[in-house]
Amino acid sequence: MAATLDTTPADDGFAMPGEFEPHSGCWMLWPERPDNWRLSARPVQQAFASVATAIATSEPVSVGVSRRQYANARAMLPAAIRVVELASNDAWMRDVGPTFVRNAAGVIRGVHWQFNAWGGLQGGLYFPWDRDCDVAQKVLEIENRERYRAPFIMEGGALHTDGQGTVITTEECLLHANRNPGLDQGALEILMHEYLGASTIVWLGKGVPNDETDGHIDELMTFVKPGVVLLTWTDSKRDPLYAVCRDAYDRLSQSRDARSRRFTIHKLPQPAPVLITKQEAAGIDASAGTFPRRAGDRMPGSYANLYIGNSVVVMPLLDRRYDRKVAVQLAKLFPRRRIVGVQAREILLGGGGIHCITQQVPAALTAKAGRIGAARATSDASPSR
Amino acid sequence: MAATLDTTPADDGFAMPGEFEPHSGCWMLWPERPDNWRLSARPVQQAFASVATAIATSEPVSVGVSRRQYANARAMLPAAIRVVELASNDAWMRDVGPTFVRNAAGVIRGVHWQFNAWGGLQGGLYFPWDRDCDVAQKVLEIENRERYRAPFIMEGGALHTDGQGTVITTEECLLHANRNPGLDQGALEILMHEYLGASTIVWLGKGVPNDETDGHIDELMTFVKPGVVLLTWTDSKRDPLYAVCRDAYDRLSQSRDARSRRFTIHKLPQPAPVLITKQEAAGIDASAGTFPRRAGDRMPGSYANLYIGNSVVVMPLLDRRYDRKVAVQLAKLFPRRRIVGVQAREILLGGGGIHCITQQVPAALTAKAGRIGAARATSDASPSR
Repeated sequence: MAATLDTTPADDGFAMPGEFEPHSGCWMLWPERPDNWRLSARPVQQAFASVATAIATSEPVSVGVSRRQYANARAMLPAAIRVVELASNDAWMRDVGPTFVRNAAGVIRGVHWQFNAWGGLQGGLYFPWDRDCDVAQKVLEIENRERYRAPFIMEGGALHTDGQGTVITTEECLLHANRNPGLDQGALEILMHEYLGASTIVWLGKGVPNDETDGHIDELMTFVKPGVVLLTWTDSKRDPLYAVCRDAYDRLSQSRDARSRRFTIHKLPQPAPVLITKQEAAGIDASAGTFPRRAGDRMPGSYANLYIGNSVVVMPLLDRRYDRKVAVQLAKLFPRRRIVGVQAREILLGGGGIHCITQQVPAALTAKAGRIGAARATSDASPSR
Repeated sequence: MAATLDTTPADDGFAMPGEFEPHSGCWMLWPERPDNWRLSARPVQQAFASVATAIATSEPVSVGVSRRQYANARAMLPAAIRVVELASNDAWMRDVGPTFVRNAAGVIRGVHWQFNAWGGLQGGLYFPWDRDCDVAQKVLEIENRERYRAPFIMEGGALHTDGQGTVITTEECLLHANRNPGLDQGALEILMHEYLGASTIVWLGKGVPNDETDGHIDELMTFVKPGVVLLTWTDSKRDPLYAVCRDAYDRLSQSRDARSRRFTIHKLPQPAPVLITKQEAAGIDASAGTFPRRAGDRMPGSYANLYIGNSVVVMPLLDRRYDRKVAVQLAKLFPRRRIVGVQAREILLGGGGIHCITQQVPAALTAKAGRIGAARATSDASPSR
């Protein structure tokens, strides 16, 4: 069951389902490194626990944690959440965990990407990242799922899919010199076909400004369901996001998805950026090899960086001016799901959001059962047309 | 699912099934400590891999391994064996892992014993044993099984059960001053009733000589099925085992089990003791807090320390004079199981045997289905009368 395959998902008829399709569970990691999270990560651990608790109302949650933090994580998390020993260099399961793929018979397998801490020695966020490199395999062993070992660097947060052959990503991230310098856009399209089952790649340009992942798509937009996306948006010309979100809007508007549909685009307000306070910065250990967190640094929050569970949408609470408005908007777009807000400032201070710290495991459903399951449990996910 | 319960197994109608009943899997740990295993544990890792491989032909095997040894264990074990990160102080899953219990509806839960490294600061085998204390919980989290936290020290190797209410143990181990000095024999019987569902406790006297666990029952005897046991035996009056096995035989002969049956006792030959060679001793790191392994030390091998899987019996190969004879004897007693021998010297050098390094997970069967399953897959396990 835990074998590593020599083929590719496309070879075997596997493709990545949409996040809005039924899940059998969700994986997270437990934050602890004191050079990224203030006060030895205690405040952010509470935020991670809130995210896990919210998702656990919807599907089983497993949290990987180092040996040293095991007892603390177990104590801070509700009993219904599974806590497993699983070492990592930080806590970004979306990027270091497996990306799951499924075939028509409902079999689930995992893709284990190459990982270099968002840029390796040329702009990566910390050194070393050896433990992160093993996370996907360890998750797949526990899940008893066969593994595809992808031959190129990719992060789960660098892609979104509609589960029907469309993958959306950004040029800024995927074509960055510090990821796969030997692979051009065409080669990457072939690899995304091979490892995600993508038949249509929609390339957006840049990610949100100040994103230290070199422009992950999951800070910029997400799918509601096939044909319908949420896009971070600002009307303020002084905001550096202004040009980025307009370009994304234009590209999305001019694209067709894998089934030749045009995208319906819903705009999400851009919350005020989180500026690290002096007190917050003082709580972070200095470390030579780690991306610094200084007072005044701008952390890019985005409402698009949410998690779509079977029966919940877990959204970040980022800005009192918009939180309620966004929750109402999401409630309309996800009418069968409960919208749960979690205070996300502590997570943002470490460089990401709720989507970045989670990774869903698709339910082992056949294509037909999947539609039935979706209709019952998650009817929001039925295609827009 | 991973909750810790405030009740006891007996409160809730749970009891430990026999090892010969159907399993859903088997757990092991990966040896690595260089102060107990020679040559940084490389030779014994091969032996553990052979045991795991043999059991994996019968049922799914999971092996817990430290972060540092993860890649090595993954490389040395076949792909079909699940490897999970799980820290321990040594590798004795029988004693540090959970003991599983089942109710009439087929629900499986785990008992997490207190553990003090076979004697704590008065005769224990190493210090510290903090990681061992967490192993059972970590296994139960991965298994998604609810947990009973027993309030007293016990090791899985200190007990055997017929799954019908009978538990066999030794006075030497359970009544040892370094285990539960505040609990007398009567109190321990009550606790074994509460945590194993035992209605009849058969107390043998001593375990095999030179056993550093203070006389674990699993070096002395094992159940073939209810009413039928295998007992280590010698006819040599000069062997210190002579008095021990005669006393065990007498006590077993005079006992009735929980269903008022007398025991049928099959005798297993005692293999020659393993004497640690000078070369072997030289391969072990010196360490102040760990039980020493010196040239000439006698390690007690026993054919009774075997593992009964769904379709195999994994037996130790210990002595060329007897290995074949014992295999034939086991083949007759377990007619529906394949008898697989594994060279066990390297395991013995660290202080135990095949039973000591394994822990079965009972199948989630109802009492009725269990009989059906046993009749089909493991008919050896049907009661003797």
